[in-house]
Amino acid sequence: MLDLDEHVEVEEQRFSLRVAWDMKHFSIPPSELNEAFAPLAKEFNAQWKISYLEKKLRVAIFVSRLDHCLQEILWRHSIGEYAVEVPLIISNHAHLQPLADHYSIPYYVFPITADNRMEQEQKELQLLSEHNIDTVIMARYMQILSAQFVQQYPDQIINIHHSFLPAFSGGNPYEQAYRRGVKIIGATSHYVTEDLDAGPIIEQDIVRISHRDTVSDLKRKGRDLERLVFARALHSHAEHRVLVCGRKTIVFQ
Amino acid sequence: MLDLDEHVEVEEQRFSLRVAWDMKHFSIPPSELNEAFAPLAKEFNAQWKISYLEKKLRVAIFVSRLDHCLQEILWRHSIGEYAVEVPLIISNHAHLQPLADHYSIPYYVFPITADNRMEQEQKELQLLSEHNIDTVIMARYMQILSAQFVQQYPDQIINIHHSFLPAFSGGNPYEQAYRRGVKIIGATSHYVTEDLDAGPIIEQDIVRISHRDTVSDLKRKGRDLERLVFARALHSHAEHRVLVCGRKTIVFQ
Amino acid sequence: MLDLDEHVEVEEQRFSLRVAWDMKHFSIPPSELNEAFAPLAKEFNAQWKISYLEKKLRVAIFVSRLDHCLQEILWRHSIGEYAVEVPLIISNHAHLQPLADHYSIPYYVFPITADNRMEQEQKELQLLSEHNIDTVIMARYMQILSAQFVQQYPDQIINIHHSFLPAFSGGNPYEQAYRRGVKIIGATSHYVTEDLDAGPIIEQDIVRISHRDTVSDLKRKGRDLERLVFARALHSHAEHRVLVCGRKTIVFQ
Amino acid sequence: MLDLDEHVEVEEQRFSLRVAWDMKHFSIPPSELNEAFAPLAKEFNAQWKISYLEKKLRVAIFVSRLDHCLQEILWRHSIGEYAVEVPLIISNHAHLQPLADHYSIPYYVFPITADNRMEQEQKELQLLSEHNIDTVIMARYMQILSAQFVQQYPDQIINIHHSFLPAFSGGNPYEQAYRRGVKIIGATSHYVTEDLDAGPIIEQDIVRISHRDTVSDLKRKGRDLERLVFARALHSHAEHRVLVCGRKTIVFQ
Repeated sequence: MLDLDEHVEVEEQRFSLRVAWDMKHFSIPPSELNEAFAPLAKEFNAQWKISYLEKKLRVAIFVSRLDHCLQEILWRHSIGEYAVEVPLIISNHAHLQPLADHYSIPYYVFPITADNRMEQEQKELQLLSEHNIDTVIMARYMQILSAQFVQQYPDQIINIHHSFLPAFSGGNPYEQAYRRGVKIIGATSHYVTEDLDAGPIIEQDIVRISHRDTVSDLKRKGRDLERLVFARALHSHAEHRVLVCGRKTIVFQ
Repeated sequence: MLDLDEHVEVEEQRFSLRVAWDMKHFSIPPSELNEAFAPLAKEFNAQWKISYLEKKLRVAIFVSRLDHCLQEILWRHSIGEYAVEVPLIISNHAHLQPLADHYSIPYYVFPITADNRMEQEQKELQLLSEHNIDTVIMARYMQILSAQFVQQYPDQIINIHHSFLPAFSGGNPYEQAYRRGVKIIGATSHYVTEDLDAGPIIEQDIVRISHRDTVSDLKRKGRDLERLVFARALHSHAEHRVLVCGRKTIVFQ
Repeated sequence: MLDLDEHVEVEEQRFSLRVAWDMKHFSIPPSELNEAFAPLAKEFNAQWKISYLEKKLRVAIFVSRLDHCLQEILWRHSIGEYAVEVPLIISNHAHLQPLADHYSIPYYVFPITADNRMEQEQKELQLLSEHNIDTVIMARYMQILSAQFVQQYPDQIINIHHSFLPAFSGGNPYEQAYRRGVKIIGATSHYVTEDLDAGPIIEQDIVRISHRDTVSDLKRKGRDLERLVFARALHSHAEHRVLVCGRKTIVFQ
Repeated sequence: MLDLDEHVEVEEQRFSLRVAWDMKHFSIPPSELNEAFAPLAKEFNAQWKISYLEKKLRVAIFVSRLDHCLQEILWRHSIGEYAVEVPLIISNHAHLQPLADHYSIPYYVFPITADNRMEQEQKELQLLSEHNIDTVIMARYMQILSAQFVQQYPDQIINIHHSFLPAFSGGNPYEQAYRRGVKIIGATSHYVTEDLDAGPIIEQDIVRISHRDTVSDLKRKGRDLERLVFARALHSHAEHRVLVCGRKTIVFQ
């Protein structure tokens, strides 16, 4: 056993458990593990899932024009920080093709207009399906995905929002924060649901600001936050540490 | 000159300046300083104010049943951290009388009901006036002050709200935070205006939480935040470092 | 089962586990639990210990002249934050007697000189023994305990040091920090061993400072840190969450 | 006037001031400013310097095998965060040539052995001189510069050290931190002097760790710190906000 973490919710009478094993000396081969475990789980009436770290998650990155979150993920991926594969990047702009090229990852452009959104999403979904994508991450992708799209990937689409949600949801959070005169700004990474910026939160962090900071300073300081919060959320997700319980997450250590 | 800090808002064409002098070797006595400075200020069309640290602010503390913020302020006051006088404490409960006694500060009880709020506020205002109070601080005072009360002390009433505003304004912010599943909780100290929890923010801070934390844990962890944020806000206010500009503050260093 | 946390050290082949149970529906009474558990532990060749939260730790507080850490612990104790009893306070000065009186806790004074240290320690140890003390906490007690004293309470004496150890161990850490020109200061709570400021660390935290801060500002800002770090360390200790492994601690969540 | 910050050291009787002007409407042209200012400075017996943001600092980056700090600086430079030029990168390994190529910056390799260090340094100094380099930044460059080299660039060589100095100076700070069992790790960016890891500190930050973190986890978490601390230090330096006073810095806001 390599790792074990659990969570007891006394009132809800719910017990959640994550165990990580090194299977080197297991007598049961991986292919028979599900079958072997099922009777035990049934006895406890447990919901359960077995994941294999060797079988890397296949992640598609959606991005628009801002490069910082894409840059961060691709660099971390390049030094082996994530146990994931990144078969493709999808964008509504051609803008970041050179960055994708530097990391040798295929880059597909689907321009979005008011009229073609649903069609383009169908093509994107088709492409994701062809590449057996498990997880979609929105690295500052500035389009709102339709409910139909979101339903295809429940608890499998990760967004980064540039505020400490639930404060400043929606558009232009840095401008909102500037106008309100807050002394801290934040970033939030969450699973995408049909309700905008209201999905289960995976990770948040903040940075102090002062009256000296202009909106442009907030964007600069916020960029650093967004990158780190997004990267940490993907790290937890890729190691199968995140369990969604209704509107909330358990992030096992 | 002991200290100087300024703030330039390029777009608004506004220049704000705070200078602290040691007046020991001044040729102009304090009593004539206003008169001496006025022509200079007029030339620059400046709004200005001279405060004297020796002339301590007179602070009234409002409190209900929770003792942590009151305890914090009285203790800091007792070790000389603030250049303020605390002539009285006002509460809607008799509960914290012993704490006031320990620090030898007069404690007045004005129970509030749905019917007597305006009358009681009149008596409180009368008492504040008799004691020449400059600043009212609400150390988790669980009543909402009327607009008439607030107007008597513009930018002179400091509240502590137990969330990172603008998130979770209003009642029960820890329950709200728990239900939303945030990964950080905060506290905000702000000047009170007629709009609930919407006044200019003086200071904010946060603490990380996890899915393990119950509402009761949030209250425990939040208590520590509230105390510090409230104490820091009063510290800046007492040293005349806070300048209110519309809905925002400049907090000079 | 209320709580479970474990820690695997792969290289050391060591597995550590903390489990908290609600014993309400246990068929084995507390008095027989040790006997019932022993064979199981023997099978796994495990070191083990059973503690009961109802049987509160008995804590003695040592203090000198500075009141902030004592104040913090007594206040938290008064609102029920700790599952501990505080039968007595020991000081080398009479100075903080009024604070002890406010919280109705017996306060013993043992003045320390170069000549009488060992004798006084013997009297203190005698007193601790009479009161069945489990844990000694040094709330800014400015004397160094002798090796003989420390050996009586292995991993049961908690100190607060006003720096982020191992930086600035020994005397006057704020002056040391000021002279070095660091941009952060810290506080460290650790178990006391015979090596000064080198025992296993339980908790640390920091606060940002700048060139504007004088030594006096560092002391003021550091006070807030010391209080919180010390309080959190005692919280973990009192809930039996801290396991000492050589020079390090495991702090179970 | 765009910005003004000052610092008074009462005991040292020293007054430091940084003022930033927009020179658009100045009657004195930049070429005559030094001459015009000199008499005023002489009157106050002041040390002074005028810098022009349009005249960008010329920065050389030294790097070895680890890419994270180099990557961070080059990316920030590419999006215009710094008012600097980066005419060249110098390394003792060929390893990071592709990253330099991606950002189109000349990359020079000077392998260092026990025997050739002084010769190679002479060649490096020659190259820096040819490119009119103002500032050398050591982005995890794993060689110690000679005293002769350091003396050529007083307060102009910036290093990133992967600990909260003065703790864990010298080699392998993450291993040192792991063995000591600290609960926080840090990073420190400082000017290089002839004393190893003892130069004036520009910026520091920390991240919390726990007993769960292996040395490898510390390196991963520390990488993120190093990048940010190093980047912020260069930001302050590039905007001429850092003033060295003996062993310490003033970092104007």
